[in-house]
Amino acid sequence: MAFFNENYRKLKAGYLFPEIARRVNAFCEANPKRAERLIRCGIGDVTEPLPSAVIAALHRAVDEQANRALFRGYGPEQGYPFLRAAIAEIDYRARGIDVADDEIFVSDGSKCDCGNILDILGHQNYVGVPDPVYPVYVDTNVMAGHTGAASSSGAYEGICYLTGNEANGFVPEPPAATAKPLDVAYLCFPNNPTGAVASRERLRAWVDYALANDTLLLFDAAYEAYVREPSLPRSIYEIHGARRCAIEFRSFSKNGGFTGLRCAFIVIPKELTARTGDGGARVPLHGLWARRMSTKFNGVSYIVQRAAEAIYSPEGRAQVSALIALYMENAAILRRGAAEAGLRVFGGENAPYIWVATPAGVGSWEFFDKMLREANVVITPGSGFGAAGEGYFRISAFNSRENAIEVARRLSALR
Amino acid sequence: MAFFNENYRKLKAGYLFPEIARRVNAFCEANPKRAERLIRCGIGDVTEPLPSAVIAALHRAVDEQANRALFRGYGPEQGYPFLRAAIAEIDYRARGIDVADDEIFVSDGSKCDCGNILDILGHQNYVGVPDPVYPVYVDTNVMAGHTGAASSSGAYEGICYLTGNEANGFVPEPPAATAKPLDVAYLCFPNNPTGAVASRERLRAWVDYALANDTLLLFDAAYEAYVREPSLPRSIYEIHGARRCAIEFRSFSKNGGFTGLRCAFIVIPKELTARTGDGGARVPLHGLWARRMSTKFNGVSYIVQRAAEAIYSPEGRAQVSALIALYMENAAILRRGAAEAGLRVFGGENAPYIWVATPAGVGSWEFFDKMLREANVVITPGSGFGAAGEGYFRISAFNSRENAIEVARRLSALR
Repeated sequence: MAFFNENYRKLKAGYLFPEIARRVNAFCEANPKRAERLIRCGIGDVTEPLPSAVIAALHRAVDEQANRALFRGYGPEQGYPFLRAAIAEIDYRARGIDVADDEIFVSDGSKCDCGNILDILGHQNYVGVPDPVYPVYVDTNVMAGHTGAASSSGAYEGICYLTGNEANGFVPEPPAATAKPLDVAYLCFPNNPTGAVASRERLRAWVDYALANDTLLLFDAAYEAYVREPSLPRSIYEIHGARRCAIEFRSFSKNGGFTGLRCAFIVIPKELTARTGDGGARVPLHGLWARRMSTKFNGVSYIVQRAAEAIYSPEGRAQVSALIALYMENAAILRRGAAEAGLRVFGGENAPYIWVATPAGVGSWEFFDKMLREANVVITPGSGFGAAGEGYFRISAFNSRENAIEVARRLSALR
Repeated sequence: MAFFNENYRKLKAGYLFPEIARRVNAFCEANPKRAERLIRCGIGDVTEPLPSAVIAALHRAVDEQANRALFRGYGPEQGYPFLRAAIAEIDYRARGIDVADDEIFVSDGSKCDCGNILDILGHQNYVGVPDPVYPVYVDTNVMAGHTGAASSSGAYEGICYLTGNEANGFVPEPPAATAKPLDVAYLCFPNNPTGAVASRERLRAWVDYALANDTLLLFDAAYEAYVREPSLPRSIYEIHGARRCAIEFRSFSKNGGFTGLRCAFIVIPKELTARTGDGGARVPLHGLWARRMSTKFNGVSYIVQRAAEAIYSPEGRAQVSALIALYMENAAILRRGAAEAGLRVFGGENAPYIWVATPAGVGSWEFFDKMLREANVVITPGSGFGAAGEGYFRISAFNSRENAIEVARRLSALR
């Protein structure tokens, strides 16, 4: 008699974005005329085409795959050396950060990496998750059986929620020394959904906490390319000691626009270890992840890895900079629109997301429905990112300039 | 204090193919002259370039990604409707097999699917795994904690090994009615590594067993395209009742040559269910997998899905047929070479693998080393596929004609 994984039954409703899609589709079917003027600022998906350096690299790689002498079948599960070297050199060593080529593991997406990393960790870990945050961290822990049931507010028993709020600038502090220590903690900066960025001092506090408590930090830096203030850290490894306590997640989705192409990577320093259940032996996580990837993955498409490599060429870097400048100017326009609507506005300065407080007494999904119905704009309800997101919504700056201006206009007209 | 998944410590040595690579690299470094004449028939990787219909589709899709109006970012996690429809229609409905478009889930590889499927299954399942077989089934169960330690023969406590041998034609029978019933059973036909194919009657016995015992069959049909005898089933769903007990795994790696491009799919019929731990409620696996994929996956690269679609065009189908004919003629040549060496030969008639008994008293790895040293040919030791593979080796027909002829010559010279 085959048994299923009953932890899935603890998951609340659908994953956030399919639920948004469901409501939008229902609205569009019921209101075909208004559907024509709908503008989507919900899911954080890029809108601009791939940079021309990436397109050229793809065509070249496709032609290689047509040529018997150049054809490449199975590649290294961890990624091709040409890409691992480009990442380690340009994203890290050129910025004075110590990362070796073989500490880079190339994957087909940060969402996959964030979920799959649990494969190599023990079930007994006490896990800290920011609130609000990208829902994948919580949902994958629920699916893996690391939690109890959800309360009516949506909080799962057994998870330590690290609350981000206006008081702490949406950058949660490490738990107090008197609280039960975390075994694993997720951090995400620039943050999805709040757009908050952690200063060097705030990250220093987390690394100090992790080193003192032997906590593993899972640092999601998928939006690193949007950091514009030079004083802000872009990598957790800019903080001394982080190589002994942190894994970093990066993606090509939001810099090169690879959301449809699929490529990302994680960094696992070789000195990073975790313990056996009795707290005894330490084992390097690098080798465990290599084994996991050899056994459950067959590498990223060769042509996509060549595309990712092109991001690091001089032309690729200039084109990515231009894309980011475009989206960040959208962010500034949207920030102004929301402020003109009389709403409290956060984020959007070193991140492509604007985080906005709903009018007093109006819930997140209620405001989502109002925006859909009255402004015909799709936003993301803050409560979809956790209980602490209630009373806020996220606007994505991933859009055309024209749409960003129009959304700002419709927002300010709501006043 | 972060804990790691200690089940990884139960894994024996490296995954098979990295171990082969290690031995080959050591040989080549020590014998640079002989390395020049090395022929690899080890890992089952295709050698011919991608079909021209696939290349053309890739270039077209890349150009779309360069055009703002046609650009596609995040796609549906389950695969684009155009590809799911092509698969369901041409691989199934056109052959009289009842499969709906939305029962197809597109992924980036069968290796991933085979490992990831365990995510939605309970840890208490009693699992049957063929021996010999593709090592991923066993290793992923070990990593998920479904086994005890390995014995000296490499067999893991808690797994039911379904032995394939010369007596049963390398097609294991279901366990006897008196044995503890299996909750989950893996089957793989055409088989990797033995090249065996199950007749309709032999699959009927498995489906009958599964329906009687509420067993979930995980049917790996990655080599379906190599079945040439019309009487042999290509899909488990050709057996009546299989929609209620089986998931089917398919891949584009070995028909279209997508080992470096990465695309595969699984079929989960909507009526397929599994039970809660108390044996009570039945839940459809289709919805659980959809949730898994929405949460831990972001879909296959759009351009790769267009490439897979091209496999189903009239030109694509003709080009794939020609590729398969090429590899299968290699298989016939290799079969003859091994027979001329006086060895007992199996498989290679409806599968791209030839399974050969080593000379009496010679172990699999011993013969691997002999072939490497004396014939300068890389084969795959049978014991790498399980204890029952000891005393055999696998030769892959994925090679050029020239190499197949030369390997056959060197084999027969071993006599």
